[in-house]
Amino acid sequence: MSRDRLEAFSDGVIAVVITIMVLNLRPPAGHALTDLRPLGPKLAVYLLSFVFIALYWNNHHLLLRAVERISGAVLWANAHLLFWLSLTPAAAAWLGPHLGESAPAAVYGVVLLGSAIAYSILTRALLAAQPPGSPLERAVGRDRKGNLSVIAYVVAIALSPIAPWFSLAVYFAVAAVWLVPDRRIERVLPGPSIRDTEATVASGEPQARLRHPDH
Amino acid sequence: MSRDRLEAFSDGVIAVVITIMVLNLRPPAGHALTDLRPLGPKLAVYLLSFVFIALYWNNHHLLLRAVERISGAVLWANAHLLFWLSLTPAAAAWLGPHLGESAPAAVYGVVLLGSAIAYSILTRALLAAQPPGSPLERAVGRDRKGNLSVIAYVVAIALSPIAPWFSLAVYFAVAAVWLVPDRRIERVLPGPSIRDTEATVASGEPQARLRHPDH
Amino acid sequence: MSRDRLEAFSDGVIAVVITIMVLNLRPPAGHALTDLRPLGPKLAVYLLSFVFIALYWNNHHLLLRAVERISGAVLWANAHLLFWLSLTPAAAAWLGPHLGESAPAAVYGVVLLGSAIAYSILTRALLAAQPPGSPLERAVGRDRKGNLSVIAYVVAIALSPIAPWFSLAVYFAVAAVWLVPDRRIERVLPGPSIRDTEATVASGEPQARLRHPDH
Amino acid sequence: MSRDRLEAFSDGVIAVVITIMVLNLRPPAGHALTDLRPLGPKLAVYLLSFVFIALYWNNHHLLLRAVERISGAVLWANAHLLFWLSLTPAAAAWLGPHLGESAPAAVYGVVLLGSAIAYSILTRALLAAQPPGSPLERAVGRDRKGNLSVIAYVVAIALSPIAPWFSLAVYFAVAAVWLVPDRRIERVLPGPSIRDTEATVASGEPQARLRHPDH
Repeated sequence: MSRDRLEAFSDGVIAVVITIMVLNLRPPAGHALTDLRPLGPKLAVYLLSFVFIALYWNNHHLLLRAVERISGAVLWANAHLLFWLSLTPAAAAWLGPHLGESAPAAVYGVVLLGSAIAYSILTRALLAAQPPGSPLERAVGRDRKGNLSVIAYVVAIALSPIAPWFSLAVYFAVAAVWLVPDRRIERVLPGPSIRDTEATVASGEPQARLRHPDH
Repeated sequence: MSRDRLEAFSDGVIAVVITIMVLNLRPPAGHALTDLRPLGPKLAVYLLSFVFIALYWNNHHLLLRAVERISGAVLWANAHLLFWLSLTPAAAAWLGPHLGESAPAAVYGVVLLGSAIAYSILTRALLAAQPPGSPLERAVGRDRKGNLSVIAYVVAIALSPIAPWFSLAVYFAVAAVWLVPDRRIERVLPGPSIRDTEATVASGEPQARLRHPDH
Repeated sequence: MSRDRLEAFSDGVIAVVITIMVLNLRPPAGHALTDLRPLGPKLAVYLLSFVFIALYWNNHHLLLRAVERISGAVLWANAHLLFWLSLTPAAAAWLGPHLGESAPAAVYGVVLLGSAIAYSILTRALLAAQPPGSPLERAVGRDRKGNLSVIAYVVAIALSPIAPWFSLAVYFAVAAVWLVPDRRIERVLPGPSIRDTEATVASGEPQARLRHPDH
Repeated sequence: MSRDRLEAFSDGVIAVVITIMVLNLRPPAGHALTDLRPLGPKLAVYLLSFVFIALYWNNHHLLLRAVERISGAVLWANAHLLFWLSLTPAAAAWLGPHLGESAPAAVYGVVLLGSAIAYSILTRALLAAQPPGSPLERAVGRDRKGNLSVIAYVVAIALSPIAPWFSLAVYFAVAAVWLVPDRRIERVLPGPSIRDTEATVASGEPQARLRHPDH
């Protein structure tokens, strides 16, 4: 199937993106534990970036499982998403040694924002390629969580010149919201609980997606 | 199937090629936005190269979908294409910091030209492995667009010693022609409109390929 | 299937992890055989790391073959394992030129320990997603070998400040135990002999796993 | 299938190996065509290494197609082959800037020799996992070509201290023999002609392998 190869190519690109980021963790010249101190912020940025890329892979995976048809527009929307994701290692390489500086925090946010918008465009391209009333349509719904993420990124980028640590906190918070959908946050930012997601994924039904309709 | 593994290997190589190019975007030592200025041309070259590799992946994907049989000659024609594509990161690494210089523009063009010729050889090897009247034969046709691209590359390389910016403009123009097949260009350079391509890909029929017969 | 794509993504990440480690083997400036001497310890660390990553790939491969269902928790447990595995090249890059120093030996051990714990969490997440009495449950059993590995890593890390060479010896020993399950060790650390594993893998039955129940 | 994932993982590793070699082609600081001169020998070594890795991928691909069962021993024989192949970028990185020196030529030969022996071990492990009279057994035969390659590598390594250019010539010659099996060489080193290989691969029958029985 065509979808299979789109998945395979995306898996390949995302696997390389997620792994070459570790090349930013160059070992120090010395051999004492204290020599590792400059690696601390780089490791934090690596962890954050790893989580973001893994989130995109998970969502991409679930998104395409709900799909029956792909189109030429989907191929390019997918390439567009991969382009933004592939910029993550470069943005992370700048942010790592400059944690707390304004410009690297802003640029990192721009890459996150670009990826989020590209994911949204991919979702729309996939919807346009499906017949009306497709499972994907029911699964994607109004996508409050995605929209709130975009707003959060824009705010974080706008405030990075005066409060770069706040911007970083926003990036971590958005990752946490997508990663650990606890019950309280669920009520504010509607999304399936971990239990629901598990059940849904296990049963193979895409309806209750990470991005799902409001009740 | 044998074709599946050829696709998987090609996907792997292309995924690595497209991703390691981002290693050329080394972050600056400073942390001001103005420190990013030298990255501007490198980012432009990355974008151009990303689009070219993605175009080849898309076309490769569609080409192999139209195929029922592969041969030993196809394996080597495919490896030959991957060889040229794998040179893209090296050519881009030279062009990025030397945008506007003659030799890097010429070398980049040689890699594009080699890839285009290798793709054409792969198409021929695939045709030779199909029975007469195969869907691939109808899909590939006279391939004006591919031939015009080759001519454009040759002209751009020849003129690079005196007009390197013109050469770069040609590379961007060729990418745009393949990427955004608007109606007017369609009439000059026959090829399916985005709408046609979508419909075709969605319906799984390879007849109306990006490289398709003239009417 | 969802499992297929989880495997494909994991294969991709592990393939990149195992391969980029070779970038630590930078060739010397000189061209005499004696110039290679500093590469000796790096090559030893590369071999050890290659074996560990290959062991994880083999076990991951066999683990997922025994599985019918995956869940959202499995996706994240798998990403968690890949995160630890992806740190191997960085830890190896520090250990290579500092063989015999305490801190690099400890850090390398921490990455091994993190990977082992993550693998154990993945196993539990997979078990939780299966119906009771699944083949996986019978295959995994009490997992003495995995638990002994974790204890060995903890001891090696604890002793690395005073005996880094001992720590390294422990890492090699653990790799050897998993790699070459000879008869005598089998009796102490229960696990299938090579012959059993072969027969089992060949027949496609997951019951007698590398991690198997005690008799 | 288990074989599928072994192929997928091998494809991934080989794809990364073949692609990261291009990182050895660092662009020069200058922007004149003459600045590229030092890249000449590196490009020749890249081409040679690319052909070798592509040959292994092709043969690996055909070898596994002839196989019905894999075993634990096959998994490790395959990892062993991937280990040697993964050393190719490091050996090539040393040989490239030192073309004509003895030690780099010898080390490159050792990696080629190790890969050839590992491939032979993998073939034996696969044979041992098949029932008697399997297609693989008929396909592999006495393997004169493989054995002659091993002898050629040993001779080239032995003579590298006094005639490094001869060693390099041998490596190129072995690649050419596997790559372009012309009629005359066919009579000396029995192997299927390109035409035969094509027909065989196209018809999906593994009998007439690149390594095939003598007549």
